[in-house]
Order: sequence, then structure tokens, then C-alpha cells
Amino acid sequence: MKNKGLLVVISGPAGAGKGTVVTELVKDGNVEVSISATTRAPRGQEKDGVEYHFLSREQFQDMIENDGFLEYAQYCGNYYGSPKKQAEEWMHQGKDVILEIEVQGCEKIKQQSPDCISIFIMPPSMEILEHRLRKRATDSEESILHRLARAKEEIRLAENYDYIIVNGPIEECVADVKSVLNAEKLKANRFDVKEILG
Amino acid sequence: MKNKGLLVVISGPAGAGKGTVVTELVKDGNVEVSISATTRAPRGQEKDGVEYHFLSREQFQDMIENDGFLEYAQYCGNYYGSPKKQAEEWMHQGKDVILEIEVQGCEKIKQQSPDCISIFIMPPSMEILEHRLRKRATDSEESILHRLARAKEEIRLAENYDYIIVNGPIEECVADVKSVLNAEKLKANRFDVKEILG
Repeated sequence: MKNKGLLVVISGPAGAGKGTVVTELVKDGNVEVSISATTRAPRGQEKDGVEYHFLSREQFQDMIENDGFLEYAQYCGNYYGSPKKQAEEWMHQGKDVILEIEVQGCEKIKQQSPDCISIFIMPPSMEILEHRLRKRATDSEESILHRLARAKEEIRLAENYDYIIVNGPIEECVADVKSVLNAEKLKANRFDVKEILG
Repeated sequence: MKNKGLLVVISGPAGAGKGTVVTELVKDGNVEVSISATTRAPRGQEKDGVEYHFLSREQFQDMIENDGFLEYAQYCGNYYGSPKKQAEEWMHQGKDVILEIEVQGCEKIKQQSPDCISIFIMPPSMEILEHRLRKRATDSEESILHRLARAKEEIRLAENYDYIIVNGPIEECVADVKSVLNAEKLKANRFDVKEILG
């Protein structure tokens, strides 16, 4: 039996509830969340190793040269990436590793880690998504409309994912993600029939 | 959302416990078991439409000509097949349809119904399989050795299935099969993003 943990990409528009789903998954103890590295400066209360690993440009570029990222990208002049070493250690311990990644990053991960599985967390409807975004009440009208337009673009790309899971009632959504992780571990290519045949 | 039920091939060696697993799955109400058709004569208490649909050779051949089978084969001069019509009606009702099929029949089903999913029910070990076969106590030593040899051949082909599920504790095995059925329904290709985007 190949007991290695799974590399799990989770994406979805802002307001779909990815964060809550991931928090629930981690409670089970067999799921870890990859902490991204970035060259942007910490904001407010952000702590190194909690929200991000904050790196200098040189440190980040050294890691790129040493094949230290599962994927990385530049946004607004800063680097963002998913460190490879910690994720691989967790997987070798049999833990599933979640990468919360922008829709645009999913293709890259699939190229570099074809065994990864990708899950798109989908809002039940655009109306509910809008309602959730407005409830936060921290964003301007302009920002909300921008997020909704962006959500539509992201949803159009959801078909590139392996699984699409609607986040209506959170418990159902979490149970569905757990089903997927369990089922993926039952795939025949993870099983060594020689262990049975001797 | 494409709510069609799944076509699920379940195979595994005699003594692996397929029958018990299938009985448990059916209890949920959303799973039906395809009843095979055969040209062999009923044995003992067997009733038409329960163990098998008993057909004449002409009836069976008519059904072949009218594309009436998901798969069929001949063993020992008799035809055996999985009728298509009832299975498709159930699937259109959103029910999952189980075909309990010999390992040799799985390839055929996959060719004709590429969307089907295939699950191999695996004994935890050859020792446990032997123990289970001997417990039945209805078979001769020769028959038990024959079944064990055949089981090894079948297990060698398990890698051709989509999923391999070990049947240790029956509740775990049934829960694993349910995970697989649930996860398969969350596959992105069954989701219509237009329903969200409007």
C-alpha cells in the first residue's frame, strides 16, 4: 500500500468559503496547510510563518534556483510561492497537504505535480456569493463588484479542476471534500497487489 | 448539474465479500443491483427475476441483436448478460446501478460504457480469504484450492480497476464504497458551471 499523503489544490472565488472549509479539514489532524512564501512586506499583525513565510527577494530567488517551490508566481511586483520541502515531508508522513491557490496557479501545479488533486469550492449561486461578500461589510461597493466579476471569471475555469464541490451548508461541503480525499486514496494505482499475493 | 446515477462495476474473488457489501449498499435506497439474464436453466429455488432473468436462447439472441445488453458473454455453452434498459432507467432516475461482474467482464463494460466506474473488492490477505472460503464448509478441498488459485488470477487483474477497496471490517468497506460513489458525483465533468453563472 502506498501510504503517501495527497497534494490537494483548493481554489474558489473570494466569498465561496474556502478558508472555513480548510479550517474544518485541518481539525481532523491528518491534513496540513502549506504556508506560502512571499517577498511582499508583512501587513498589520501578520507574523512570519503564520500567514506567510516572509522572504527577501534574494532568498526567494535562491529557492527558485534550488527547485524549492511546487509553484510560484509574481503578482504586483512580488513573488508568491508554495515551498516544496515541508509539503513533501508531510506527504511522506502520510498527511494530506492543502495548497490554497489562485485559479491561475492550478495549471502550474498540475504540470509540476501531476499526481495532485484539485478541488474547486463553488458558491451555491451568484446571489449567495454576493450576499456573503456584502455581509463582510469591509469592502467598498467598487471592490465588491470587482470581486463578483473576478468570481465569474474563476467559475468559468472551474471545469479544469478534478472536482467541484458546492459550499452550501458547510458540514456537507466538508464531508464532500473528505469523501474525495478518501476516495482518491482508494484509487487502484495506489495499491500494490503484491502485498496481497505475497 | 448532471444528476444521472452511476454505473458501478463491482468485482472480486469468491470469498472477498462482494455480496455482503452490495446488500449493505442497497439498504440506502439510492442503489439498485442489475439482475443478469441467462440462458442456463434455473437451479433449485432460483426464481425468474430474482437471481436471474431466465431467457431462451432465441430471446437472448434477439436482445443481443437489439443492443439490449451492457455486456454479455458465454460460459460453458450458456449466455450471461447485463440488460441495458432497466439499468438506464434507474440511472435516469438518479440511482446508482451495480453490476456484479466477473473480472473478465470488466474490460467489456468499460469499452461499451466508458463512464462506468469499477471497484475491486479485495480480501485483506490470502490467509483470510482461505479462512472465509473454508468457513462456508460447503465446498470440497479441491474446489477450495481451485477458488484460491482463481482468486490469485483475479487479484492480479485488480490493477485494471478504478478503485481497490479492502474488505476487512465490513462497515469500513461499505463506507469506503460510499465515499467513492459520492466523490465520483463531485467530478467536475458532471457539473454545469452555466447553472451558477446563469
